[in-house]
Amino acid sequence: MNVISKINDLRLTIDHLKNTGKTIGFVPTMGFLHEGHLTLAKEARTNNEVVVMSIFVNPLQFGPNEDFDRYPRDVERDTELARMSGVDILFIPDVADMYPGKQSITMNVEERVDVLCGRKREGHFDGVVTVLTKLFHLVQPTRAYFGQKDAQQVAVVEGLVSDYFFPIEIIRVPTVREEDGLAKSSRNVYLSQDERQVAPFLYESLQEARKRIEEGERSPSFLTGMISKIIQENTSGTIDYVEVYSYPEFRELKRLEGDIIIAVAVQFQQARLIDNIIISVQPEEDYYV
Amino acid sequence: MNVISKINDLRLTIDHLKNTGKTIGFVPTMGFLHEGHLTLAKEARTNNEVVVMSIFVNPLQFGPNEDFDRYPRDVERDTELARMSGVDILFIPDVADMYPGKQSITMNVEERVDVLCGRKREGHFDGVVTVLTKLFHLVQPTRAYFGQKDAQQVAVVEGLVSDYFFPIEIIRVPTVREEDGLAKSSRNVYLSQDERQVAPFLYESLQEARKRIEEGERSPSFLTGMISKIIQENTSGTIDYVEVYSYPEFRELKRLEGDIIIAVAVQFQQARLIDNIIISVQPEEDYYV
Repeated sequence: MNVISKINDLRLTIDHLKNTGKTIGFVPTMGFLHEGHLTLAKEARTNNEVVVMSIFVNPLQFGPNEDFDRYPRDVERDTELARMSGVDILFIPDVADMYPGKQSITMNVEERVDVLCGRKREGHFDGVVTVLTKLFHLVQPTRAYFGQKDAQQVAVVEGLVSDYFFPIEIIRVPTVREEDGLAKSSRNVYLSQDERQVAPFLYESLQEARKRIEEGERSPSFLTGMISKIIQENTSGTIDYVEVYSYPEFRELKRLEGDIIIAVAVQFQQARLIDNIIISVQPEEDYYV
Repeated sequence: MNVISKINDLRLTIDHLKNTGKTIGFVPTMGFLHEGHLTLAKEARTNNEVVVMSIFVNPLQFGPNEDFDRYPRDVERDTELARMSGVDILFIPDVADMYPGKQSITMNVEERVDVLCGRKREGHFDGVVTVLTKLFHLVQPTRAYFGQKDAQQVAVVEGLVSDYFFPIEIIRVPTVREEDGLAKSSRNVYLSQDERQVAPFLYESLQEARKRIEEGERSPSFLTGMISKIIQENTSGTIDYVEVYSYPEFRELKRLEGDIIIAVAVQFQQARLIDNIIISVQPEEDYYV
């Protein structure tokens, strides 16, 4: 595995690969790798000749009151995990190289942004698309891999690629979970022992919603109420949101139909956890036939 | 020459070229080609294995009161001229394909924009960088060619490429002029016969400024005053601006020094003409030595 920190070194390496017609699978991360990331890398490994992973904690996507400085970092461990997952090129740039000065041109996400995490993280997705545009130009991937856990991010990135005709295929990879259902996340390490014990109730509440939908429930407000109740009664966390939308458009729904997302965010003492499920909902039966 | 109008056809063609390691020179235009454009194409021809030209009158870079509908178009003639200039692929997309819906993500030029033409054309450069980002992703050029006549545009595009790490080299090509000095432009056809007669005074005034600088003049306000006087006394046009800045930063200057741009814009009855010169100014002599 080739570990590269300098932009020009990466450019030379990528130029060589592109000139020889190699397919490149790209897994952008903020490091502190967990099984979720490694699943993305393995997926990339299966379908591309070369796998590039980046590790970059992107300051532009953190708000002033967010945890940029405190975001967990462990480059040595990450390097070992990347190597074991079949990554060929690990790109770990410096902030000063990725943002050498004030941007003369900014990118602003206008759609799919005032829902879920975007609503409270002003500018977050602007930072995400800015750094991804830079990384996409540096890595020039054939395919880029994103976890469905960050469902809003996937939708925004799909918008980026389709708006600006990036010659890149975006691959959505299902959320990887612990055995008890908790979605893997770098932030899980900040859970207290008690919090870790009850954190699986996020997914359990979503699974309960899925069951109700299968039984015929079509009311978004009933489901969000039920999910909130399960989380409030079983965890010490504070609910940030429980929301239901069409996916990937994030339109509000009066009755469930078509592809939908049910998403939750819960604030614990030192960690804010998110989770979601995406369901294809059958139209309601028409009893008048 | 291959004339392509559909995005997917272009993608297939470009993919094939990239996979075989071909260098691509790109000349983006709004059509109604003149010798300026053809010079860009010839320059691209010299240094690349494949030359791609695009013709696309980009609605996003025209203001509501500007001449989008009236912008001159002649695809048949353009096709012939492109062929004669050695263009390999001529890309002429539809507006509906380039802008299939509202952009979910916008680009906003924040620097180098409140000077020259940018000051009065709000959103103009946002439209320029948006369409260029799309075209750059479709064409994937090794080098892209821009005329120095649109000096502010060149500076903004250089900012775009450097901010977002596009793997593209921007080539500045000197302004091409008629024998009498008038800068070539698609809009010159809108000059009346009388206006066409006096239009060369734009360049003549700039040349006079250059002479004064060579003789030791270092005051921007003296030079802009002199240029304005020459244009007012010799043409029927209305001066939009006469401005002097550092280049390519577009910083205001008290005294001339370093690389500078002197730029003019003059409104005639049916056409607004622009011109500029870029000069490397020696530091003033120090008489105390």
